Amino acid sequence: MINPSNDKLSNRDVSLNVPIVGDNILKLVEARTLKGFRDLLPAEAGLKSHMLHSLEDVFRKFGFPRIETPHLEYAECLLGDAGAEISKQVYRFKDNGDRDVALRFDLTVPFARYVVQHQAELGLPFRRYAIGNVFRGEKSQAGRYREFTQCDFDIIGSESFDAARAADAETVQVMVASLKALKVPGFSVCINNRKIYNGLCEYLGVADNASNILRAIDKIGKIGAEGITTELKPTGISEQVISELLEFVNLSKGKTSLETLASLEKYRNKSQMLDAGIDELSAVVKMLSAIPSLDSTHKVDLSIARGLGYYTGIVFETMVRGYENFGSVCSGGRYDNLATTFSKKRLPGVGASVGLDRLMAVLSEIDKTPVKGTPAELLIFIENSDSIGTIHAAAAQLRELGLNVETYPQVGSIKDQFKYAERHGHPFTLRFMGNNNWQISNLEKGTKEEISNLEQVSLRIKTL
Amino acid sequence: MINPSNDKLSNRDVSLNVPIVGDNILKLVEARTLKGFRDLLPAEAGLKSHMLHSLEDVFRKFGFPRIETPHLEYAECLLGDAGAEISKQVYRFKDNGDRDVALRFDLTVPFARYVVQHQAELGLPFRRYAIGNVFRGEKSQAGRYREFTQCDFDIIGSESFDAARAADAETVQVMVASLKALKVPGFSVCINNRKIYNGLCEYLGVADNASNILRAIDKIGKIGAEGITTELKPTGISEQVISELLEFVNLSKGKTSLETLASLEKYRNKSQMLDAGIDELSAVVKMLSAIPSLDSTHKVDLSIARGLGYYTGIVFETMVRGYENFGSVCSGGRYDNLATTFSKKRLPGVGASVGLDRLMAVLSEIDKTPVKGTPAELLIFIENSDSIGTIHAAAAQLRELGLNVETYPQVGSIKDQFKYAERHGHPFTLRFMGNNNWQISNLEKGTKEEISNLEQVSLRIKTL
Repeated sequence: MINPSNDKLSNRDVSLNVPIVGDNILKLVEARTLKGFRDLLPAEAGLKSHMLHSLEDVFRKFGFPRIETPHLEYAECLLGDAGAEISKQVYRFKDNGDRDVALRFDLTVPFARYVVQHQAELGLPFRRYAIGNVFRGEKSQAGRYREFTQCDFDIIGSESFDAARAADAETVQVMVASLKALKVPGFSVCINNRKIYNGLCEYLGVADNASNILRAIDKIGKIGAEGITTELKPTGISEQVISELLEFVNLSKGKTSLETLASLEKYRNKSQMLDAGIDELSAVVKMLSAIPSLDSTHKVDLSIARGLGYYTGIVFETMVRGYENFGSVCSGGRYDNLATTFSKKRLPGVGASVGLDRLMAVLSEIDKTPVKGTPAELLIFIENSDSIGTIHAAAAQLRELGLNVETYPQVGSIKDQFKYAERHGHPFTLRFMGNNNWQISNLEKGTKEEISNLEQVSLRIKTL
Repeated sequence: MINPSNDKLSNRDVSLNVPIVGDNILKLVEARTLKGFRDLLPAEAGLKSHMLHSLEDVFRKFGFPRIETPHLEYAECLLGDAGAEISKQVYRFKDNGDRDVALRFDLTVPFARYVVQHQAELGLPFRRYAIGNVFRGEKSQAGRYREFTQCDFDIIGSESFDAARAADAETVQVMVASLKALKVPGFSVCINNRKIYNGLCEYLGVADNASNILRAIDKIGKIGAEGITTELKPTGISEQVISELLEFVNLSKGKTSLETLASLEKYRNKSQMLDAGIDELSAVVKMLSAIPSLDSTHKVDLSIARGLGYYTGIVFETMVRGYENFGSVCSGGRYDNLATTFSKKRLPGVGASVGLDRLMAVLSEIDKTPVKGTPAELLIFIENSDSIGTIHAAAAQLRELGLNVETYPQVGSIKDQFKYAERHGHPFTLRFMGNNNWQISNLEKGTKEEISNLEQVSLRIKTL
């Protein structure tokens, strides 16, 4: 029983063999979501939508266009050559055509695939933003979801030292502008450079252990200096080296970026990599200092490492003061080998990702005022069938006068309709009193007033 | 090698075993998307994003809040009780926890699940909109995709006859407002009622064949009267009945809604169902006529049937004049049994879906002007390393003055940078001429002018 009109994909006929029309259903199915997945209620979804629009405005301000890639891809495009051990975290399966497919787990790998696939149309350099959901079958815990939203922006193809530093610095600017647009209070974008750590490890003779070291340092906020010592001792790194590492990590503590850069000078000429890292970091800090509107929103922090990953240069993390336990709300860095899976061409780039779900959690901690669910400014009551036509025509007129207006979708008691307005957060309600007379209730203040035509109603609500 | 910092989901470390960092890749993976799936290039994604924002504004104007549901659900929640034959069109698989899961194929079934699951918080009546991607493994054809975007809005819980008609009429209003907001020219929302057809089939003694009849009539635009006759004859319906059906279908041809309603009067008192359908249709048309801003955007059309599906009352389709071959761009209807899979409670509702992908196809047929990819109004050139700092600071200032500004992310030749601007569609470029002097190029007109400070640059570009 395939729907003959299944060319109407945009329509709502379920052109699938699904027993929607009721009577032949044998038993009820429990209405539930998968573990680690969630529905958003109107207030949360409204807040999220508002935040996404603000972020898009910022990305557009910096000239980033949006792109989209599919949620589902060939597994090899997402996971690389089949030789790789496959993570249990990926939702991977065979589709009905027996293709090996997977749900995307980030927006970065698909971006690399996208750039290689469309390079003829896009050209290089190229910048883009992308907003979309990604899927990871991780252990589900409070605030951690198996489907969540990422907002990424990247600039690829800046080749010279200076242009690459300019792109690094622009990334910080976009991060700052994004968090300002979202009204995140007291945030600080922390900047470091992976070359500094790799160079330091080289200089200290522990280059082979660099990834263990980076991973340990990445946790310093949680485990402290003792934790790092405990973690690194079994790897065979000497106490002397561990103490030098910890001294280095603490170099930036309580210092301004310029002071930190000054202290780094004593590490000059010890390793080429270390020098390169210090040069890059200095150049970025210098560029950022020249932009007054950034003031104190960013700072060099040698304790950030960004654990594993594909970073090869500058790295960023953003903490919200007082909410450090939530982790970084906006992070990223420079990578020079993004497209290696797909192309022999080098594809250097820099970018970052706004952690929207985490930011929503932080912001709702900071401001516990409940968010209202409805976008309507006004709910018009329906008290009897005879007035429905009048009220719908009035609603249409008020919308044309610029208001967001909802009509109660039922004939109901005044009590029920007030309850509905309170539940959904309508700031005002309107009752039709006959003869073009209307009664506005201000639900926040608990006041009422009568007004005699719709233009006046609209003006009054706009002033309130 | 699991990332120890995998609590940083919002971040970009790929906390998965993915061989991103290059050197150990054995062979290159071909960069490609799955059949029926697609990437959106900047111009398409920008247009889509703009259209979605316009739609959201309309939905909010009518007081619909947004909700979100996951892309992945328990298969039984999407497909109903396991007794149902399962369509090959659904992306269904076992997850790593051996759960039987599926990607959503529409937003309507998840909405039913959502309402039942959250009824305590939401209450009834309830309205919402949802925008999201859905997945159907259909044969892929031109313009038909396996992943596509739906934009749905629904009002549920209007119980009385008048309130339900008001909700039906409001749905038409939202459809009209949506298509107007998207600047769709010459569209017409066609309205019919399923009860009229079911009643007519009852009256003609072919109630058992009603679904075949509805399916055939749904195709009248494509196959014509002869096609319908050819299709229905083998089902055992007499020629007499077929000709009565066709006469009925043509009743609304070339007539206004009021004329059609008048012709329907001769079908009164033949079947209770038919009478109920005519009553509902008349009431909705009457309400719509009372809203002057709707003028000629809607009309009763007895030839629309909406094929299969869960509709039980009013149904809608929208054709764009001259582009009828694209099919309906906005459709929907009333359903009274949406939540039957999950609850014994009746959940009457009405809603519609804007076919965004199809609308984009129609609009790009109508206006073949290429859409520009970049949101930037201005591209600032970078001609040498020494000026990068100055130029980035200037860009920051121009953004504060309200412009969307991109800096070329590389030191490059003037030729390359003009090529970049043309490729991405920047209307203006800016060159730093030293000493706070700037040269604006108007790419559309091919003109140049020199201006001596950034406030003036900003003012000049705003006037241009």
